[in-house]
Amino acid sequence: MNKTTWGAIATWRMAHDGVKQASQMLQANGSAGDAVEALIKTVEAYPYYKSVGYGGLPNENGVVEMDAAFMDGDTLAQGAVAGIHNVFHAVSVARALSHEHYNSFLVGEGATQYAQLNGFEMRNMLTDRAKQRWEKRRQEIADTKVKPYDGHDTVGAITLAPSGSMAAATSTSGLFMKRPGRVGDSPLSGSGFYVDSDVGGAAATGLGEDIMKGCLSYDIVRRMGEGRTPQQACDEAVYPFIEKLKRRYGKAGEFSLIALDRQGNWGVATNVEFTFSVGTASQEPAILIAHPGPNQTTNIEPITQAWLDAYEKRIKAPIE
Amino acid sequence: MNKTTWGAIATWRMAHDGVKQASQMLQANGSAGDAVEALIKTVEAYPYYKSVGYGGLPNENGVVEMDAAFMDGDTLAQGAVAGIHNVFHAVSVARALSHEHYNSFLVGEGATQYAQLNGFEMRNMLTDRAKQRWEKRRQEIADTKVKPYDGHDTVGAITLAPSGSMAAATSTSGLFMKRPGRVGDSPLSGSGFYVDSDVGGAAATGLGEDIMKGCLSYDIVRRMGEGRTPQQACDEAVYPFIEKLKRRYGKAGEFSLIALDRQGNWGVATNVEFTFSVGTASQEPAILIAHPGPNQTTNIEPITQAWLDAYEKRIKAPIE
Repeated sequence: MNKTTWGAIATWRMAHDGVKQASQMLQANGSAGDAVEALIKTVEAYPYYKSVGYGGLPNENGVVEMDAAFMDGDTLAQGAVAGIHNVFHAVSVARALSHEHYNSFLVGEGATQYAQLNGFEMRNMLTDRAKQRWEKRRQEIADTKVKPYDGHDTVGAITLAPSGSMAAATSTSGLFMKRPGRVGDSPLSGSGFYVDSDVGGAAATGLGEDIMKGCLSYDIVRRMGEGRTPQQACDEAVYPFIEKLKRRYGKAGEFSLIALDRQGNWGVATNVEFTFSVGTASQEPAILIAHPGPNQTTNIEPITQAWLDAYEKRIKAPIE
Repeated sequence: MNKTTWGAIATWRMAHDGVKQASQMLQANGSAGDAVEALIKTVEAYPYYKSVGYGGLPNENGVVEMDAAFMDGDTLAQGAVAGIHNVFHAVSVARALSHEHYNSFLVGEGATQYAQLNGFEMRNMLTDRAKQRWEKRRQEIADTKVKPYDGHDTVGAITLAPSGSMAAATSTSGLFMKRPGRVGDSPLSGSGFYVDSDVGGAAATGLGEDIMKGCLSYDIVRRMGEGRTPQQACDEAVYPFIEKLKRRYGKAGEFSLIALDRQGNWGVATNVEFTFSVGTASQEPAILIAHPGPNQTTNIEPITQAWLDAYEKRIKAPIE
């Protein structure tokens, strides 16, 4: 094993610049917490990612309400916010809260007030582009052409520092056109994220309402703790749960999970086309694409330039 | 095994009347969901229980903010609210939300608005007695005589119906003098509650910020699924985690967990003096008292009349 093991993995193509930045920080002996926060902040700041932070899609009233969490894998300390608004970096608020023994998970106005009182950057998070999408969708709903809810791409990330410390974090603007105050899995321990530096970490993206029915991030970490590789843990936690949910609940939303262990090995599982980015001591930061494979396995391939070009065009296309 | 197996277990002495009512309903072939909701509602309605519902203690601004959840063990459907206010029965709102596929967890103003729009009984939840306690505590804090936070006794319950269906629910006004918007473990899947009718269920009370670091309710259900009795599952999930938290985080708050399996067997684990109530097909509803025992076990004894008399006196004592 490489003595200077480190790693960073995060959900979706949008996290790639953040993974590159986190990788540089970790390579230079940065902390797992600093790296995961920096990673998430790059996604929160970029206006063309419509499911996280600035430029994120609003709730049914046109308000960008965000959920975020931070977990320290050494101490198991956690901080989280849900339904926070007008705050530029929700993940930084979550990280600050992780230092509190009491009141470490705040929601709604209380979360926003905490951010204000503690000097976090406030910003109107509704971009013109997001507002145009919201207005268009309201019209479509009025015309009964579409069901209101879709779009729930959380950025979730796990980092491993050369010191052996690990951290996890998430950030999302949640379901497009959600009801005010709706919370998904992203700020919920064990559902949206979990990390234990003695074992590894996991994070989720997809339909939060269904992910929380299975506590999938906790379950993946537990399986790694029993000796599974991150890929085995993801496959064994995610695919049987999707089958169970279809059998018991009648349907299962979209789910994608990522995992990283304390040796820098990683894995993913998904029931949709799922891009992610990963960089480790033995692997340059790269975007990969996963699909569900045969017999509860996952197919993982390098991303193609054609896919990336189409993505770039799609996220910047005019709203019509 | 008794063909008409059923059971109800709930945290704290305050739940006993609810357990008696749930037991009658289950004996008469009532549903697990109806029984667990009725159980929680009796606790929410009683003004002398200062940690749940009406008469619950307010946040630092004097507002009674409540968290509650409901889970259906057949379908794994969940509903939850956090930071809801002016609503008489938060658990009933959580149960209504469990029927929604999207937006099933609502917080803050959004949760309160949902309750209003859907005809739930609204009420000023701050009793004169709770207001007196809040005023007294504010003065004590101003005098720097006490640390602000204590009191976090959630009612959590699990029911098993003769049909084999199970349900779980929680309700709390949370930490006394909490920051506005603070959320504990009670509304969080896997931390405050979890139930799977094929296995069993668990629920938690104690310091939510620490319980959510371990996803203890999910972990207990998982262990029962691997063949542990509810008592083994509680002991094996809770006591090692408390040790781990002391080692890694430096301290561990108060924790008490209850569990019920699909055969009607039950168990508890705790690091404090912990009362609970349980009734099953083979056991009349009774209040029991648990303490941590030697070697990561739990001592459980019947409650004494002297304890009950002192409790009754304490909860109704004048606020001085």
